[in-house]
Amino acid sequence: MVAVAARELSIAAVHRLIERAGAERVGDDATEELRTILEELAQRVGKKAKDLASHAGRKTVKAEDIRLAVKEIVRE
Amino acid sequence: MVAVAARELSIAAVHRLIERAGAERVGDDATEELRTILEELAQRVGKKAKDLASHAGRKTVKAEDIRLAVKEIVRE
Repeated sequence: MVAVAARELSIAAVHRLIERAGAERVGDDATEELRTILEELAQRVGKKAKDLASHAGRKTVKAEDIRLAVKEIVRE
Repeated sequence: MVAVAARELSIAAVHRLIERAGAERVGDDATEELRTILEELAQRVGKKAKDLASHAGRKTVKAEDIRLAVKEIVRE
């Protein structure tokens, strides 16, 4: 995974997402872990999407680049 | 992917994460797409982590549950 320079996602938001999945209690360590993972994943997807945009002759990353990048990274 | 009831992650944060990956320009559609994907992913991981915690006899989801859940969902 790539290094994340600074934190972007809110701890409270990530905590709510885990709770909403049905967890009775969520440890602070679990929230921090998922936050880091989501941030790293966003960067991996971003890098791949950027390459896909370049490949299509565009400087702007579009939703279609994100979707294709995610397909390669996340299992269905 | 599971349905997301309400939005949790900040559009600005997700936009910055894509930019930080080196993208020259990022379409609004791309940011929105990645936000949705990250939220859905967080819920998938949360559900799996909750099951793993139960399996280990715990009501509290811990970082180790998140890590194991992510392994099954995200490719290395």
